[in-house]
Amino acid sequence: MTQAVRHDAMRARNLALVLGEVSARGSVTRAALAEITGLAKTTVSKLIADLIEAGLVVETGIVRAGERGRPGMEVQVSGLSVAAIGLEINVDYLAAHVVDLSRSVRLRRARPVDNRLASPGDVIANLQHLALSAVDEAVDIGLRVVGGVLAVPGTVDLTTGTVRRAPNLGWRDVPLLSLLRMPFPIRVDNEANLAALGELWFGAGHRDFLHVSGEIGVGAGLVVRGELFRGFRGFAGELGHVVVSPGGPPCHCGGQGCLERYAGQDALLSAAGLAPSAPSSGPGQDATRLPASPPPPSGPEQGPGRRPDPGCPAPAVADTPSTPGHPGTGIAELLRRLEASDSDALAACERAGWALGIALTSAVNLVDPERIVLGGIYAPLFPWIGGAVTETLTARLGEMREVVPSVEVSRLGTEAAPLGAAGQVIHQIIADPAGLLNA
Amino acid sequence: MTQAVRHDAMRARNLALVLGEVSARGSVTRAALAEITGLAKTTVSKLIADLIEAGLVVETGIVRAGERGRPGMEVQVSGLSVAAIGLEINVDYLAAHVVDLSRSVRLRRARPVDNRLASPGDVIANLQHLALSAVDEAVDIGLRVVGGVLAVPGTVDLTTGTVRRAPNLGWRDVPLLSLLRMPFPIRVDNEANLAALGELWFGAGHRDFLHVSGEIGVGAGLVVRGELFRGFRGFAGELGHVVVSPGGPPCHCGGQGCLERYAGQDALLSAAGLAPSAPSSGPGQDATRLPASPPPPSGPEQGPGRRPDPGCPAPAVADTPSTPGHPGTGIAELLRRLEASDSDALAACERAGWALGIALTSAVNLVDPERIVLGGIYAPLFPWIGGAVTETLTARLGEMREVVPSVEVSRLGTEAAPLGAAGQVIHQIIADPAGLLNA
Repeated sequence: MTQAVRHDAMRARNLALVLGEVSARGSVTRAALAEITGLAKTTVSKLIADLIEAGLVVETGIVRAGERGRPGMEVQVSGLSVAAIGLEINVDYLAAHVVDLSRSVRLRRARPVDNRLASPGDVIANLQHLALSAVDEAVDIGLRVVGGVLAVPGTVDLTTGTVRRAPNLGWRDVPLLSLLRMPFPIRVDNEANLAALGELWFGAGHRDFLHVSGEIGVGAGLVVRGELFRGFRGFAGELGHVVVSPGGPPCHCGGQGCLERYAGQDALLSAAGLAPSAPSSGPGQDATRLPASPPPPSGPEQGPGRRPDPGCPAPAVADTPSTPGHPGTGIAELLRRLEASDSDALAACERAGWALGIALTSAVNLVDPERIVLGGIYAPLFPWIGGAVTETLTARLGEMREVVPSVEVSRLGTEAAPLGAAGQVIHQIIADPAGLLNA
Repeated sequence: MTQAVRHDAMRARNLALVLGEVSARGSVTRAALAEITGLAKTTVSKLIADLIEAGLVVETGIVRAGERGRPGMEVQVSGLSVAAIGLEINVDYLAAHVVDLSRSVRLRRARPVDNRLASPGDVIANLQHLALSAVDEAVDIGLRVVGGVLAVPGTVDLTTGTVRRAPNLGWRDVPLLSLLRMPFPIRVDNEANLAALGELWFGAGHRDFLHVSGEIGVGAGLVVRGELFRGFRGFAGELGHVVVSPGGPPCHCGGQGCLERYAGQDALLSAAGLAPSAPSSGPGQDATRLPASPPPPSGPEQGPGRRPDPGCPAPAVADTPSTPGHPGTGIAELLRRLEASDSDALAACERAGWALGIALTSAVNLVDPERIVLGGIYAPLFPWIGGAVTETLTARLGEMREVVPSVEVSRLGTEAAPLGAAGQVIHQIIADPAGLLNA
C-alpha cells in the first residue's frame, strides 16, 4: 500500500467516523467531536470543512456554552443539499419518494396503475418517468439526488439487480437494473425488506420487530438489534407463503393455502365482495400531484385518483408538499364499507386477521420477535384486523410464553418501502461519505 | 483502572488470542503464533507456558522445519486434562456426555426413563446421580470436568436457569439450576438450540443450517454464519409449534394442529400403531453401561436396555468406551417394522414427513436457511421420512426458488444436544481461558 493510498483510506475512515457521530448526536461541536473520536481538533476541523463543502454537514448557527469546554459552533447533518430517491414498483402502483440526508421526507409521488397488465419494459419506462419528474422537482427545491434504491414485490438477486420471481407481477428473471436508466447509481431490493428498514428508520423507533407488509402480496422483514435479517440467499421474510392451511387454495407461488390467499389484498377484497385491486378513479377522490406522464402503452392508466384513507394513521414525517401514503382504491372502498359496518367487509377482515394470526403464530415460534408491526394495507385496516390477529396469537402462544409479542400498527403504511429504499442510500452515505466527496 | 487491573485485562485478552489461534489452527509453533498475533515471542512463550501449566495446551513433540522461520516445537489444544460435561433431560431419557478440550467425546452415558412420571425433583436427583458417575469415570481417565450445560426440552430463562415451560414434561417455572448440585458451574439451555450447536461443532461442518431436533417434542436451531439465532427473548426455533393445520388436534402448548401433533415421537408411534414412548426393556436389547443408580422414587426405571439402531448413522466422534446415541425403544420397534415394510409404519413416516415438509416450507419462507439437517429421532428414521420432506418442500418452494434447501441427515441423532451442551463450555473456555487459569 502506498503512503497516498494509506492516507486516503485513513481519511475515508475518519470522515465516516465524524459524520457518523454528527448523525447519531443530532448536533455537536467540533471540540466535542474531537473528544468523542480521539482525533486531533485540527483534523476534525479539516474533515468538517470538507463535509460542509460537499453539502453533507451544515453549521447550525447556534453558539452555546460547551458543557466540556469552550463555546463552539455546532454542526449537524445537512438537509439542504444531498438527497436520495426511494422507488417502488408494486402490483397496483408506482412510487418515488425523495428523502434528504437529514432523513426528512421531501417529496412523495405515487401513481396507481395495474402493473399486471403491462410488460416489465413498460412498467420500467413508466417508473423512470415518475422518478425523473421527482428528481426534477427535487432540483427545484435545491436538492441533489445522488442515488436510489428500487423496491419490488419479489425475490431479488442483490448483486445483479435481477428480479428472480415476482409472482404477483407475473415476472421471472427480469434484469431490472439493466433496464432502468437513471443519472445516478440504483440498487434493487425486496419490497418487504425495505419496508422493514423504512419502519426502522422512519417509524416508531423500535430496533427489534417483525414488520408485515400487506399489499397484493404479503411480505415481512425481520429487524434484529437494528439490522435486517436477510437469510442465507437473501430470501427470508416471505410471510405471504407461510402455510395457513396445507390443503387450501393454490397460490401463484406454486404452493397451496399460503397466507397470501387469505390475507393478501386481492383475497381480502374478494372475500368482502369487491373486485380485485385494479386502480380506478372513483368519484369523490382528491386529485393528486401526479407527474404528467403518458399512460403505459399496454395498460392504460385508469385514473390518478386516490385519497388519504380515514383509518390510516398520519405519516411520521410530514414536512412535504405532497400527499400521504397510497393504498389502492379497492382498499379505500373496503374502508368505506367497514366504517359503514358492512357485514361482508367485517367478516373478510376477521378472516384475514385470523389467517395472519396463524401465519404469525408460526413466525413467532420460529424467530421470536420482540413485537409485530402491521404495515402496508394492514395499517389503515388495523382497526378491523388487529384484534383478530392479537386474539389468534394469544390463543395459540399465550400458554407457552409469558409475553406474546404485541401487534402494533405501522405509522407509515404503504410508504414504508420507498422510504426504506431512500433511507438505505442515506444510511450508506453516512457510513461511507468519502465516495461522495471524491465524486 | 489501576495498572495491575489493566495488566490482568491485557493478559486475559492475550491468553484468549493465543488459545483461539491454537484451537483454530490445530497445531502451531510459538514463532508462528508470534507472527500471527503480533505479540512478542517472549510474551507468546510466557502465555503458552501458563496454558500448558493449566492443562489447556500440550506440546505435540513434533519438531519440524518451520515454514516461516526456525524449526520449533508445535503446540495444540490439550485433550488430556480439562473437560466439560453435557447433560440432557429429555422426556424419555437422561444423558451425560463428557468432552475434552480438544473436542473429543470421551464418555457417553444415557439412561432411558420416562420423566413424565416423575417430579422435577426426582428427575434432577436422577440426573445428578448419572452426571456425578460420569464425572467420576472422567476422573478415572485423567480428566478434570470444569463446567457443564444442561439441555432441556422447553423454554429457558438463560439468566436464572429456570425452565419456563416444558409442556412435554409437564413443567412450568422449574428453577432447575438451583435444584442441581454439581461441583462446578452449570448453565441451562434449550435442547433444540444445543442440538444445533452440537451439529455445528461435532457434525458435518456446515455453518448455515436449520437443525431439526425430533424427540417427543420437535425443536429447531437456526445457525447463521456459525452463530445460533436465538430471537429476542431466546425462544426462537420452536418448530414443533409451527402450525401445520389450523384446525388440527389440540397441542400441549395450548395451540392446535402444531407440527408436534403430526411428527413428534408420540404422534409418530401412535400413527404406526405403537404405544407412546415409555422406555421398556424389550427382549434382545444389549445391556449398556449405566450408572448403578437407584430407581427414581415416583417412577421406577423400566429397564436399562437400548441398542444401536440399524438406520442410525455412526456418531461423528467415536473414541469412547461407551455406547452410541440413544433413541427410545419405541423408535427401535418402529425401525424394525419399517425394515419389515410394515404398511402402518411406512404410512406414519410418510405422514410425519409430509407434516415436517409443511412446517419447513413455512420455516424456509421465513428464515431462508442454506440447508436443513434432520436430527434426533429423524436421523435413524431419515430413510423413511427424508423423501417426503424433500418432496413437500420441492412441491411448495420449487416454483419460487432456484435452489430449495437440501434436507440432510444429522450424523449425531439424539446425541447432538448433550454434545452441544458440553461444546458450549469448551467454546467458552477457548474464548476466555483466563478464568480457568486464575481459578
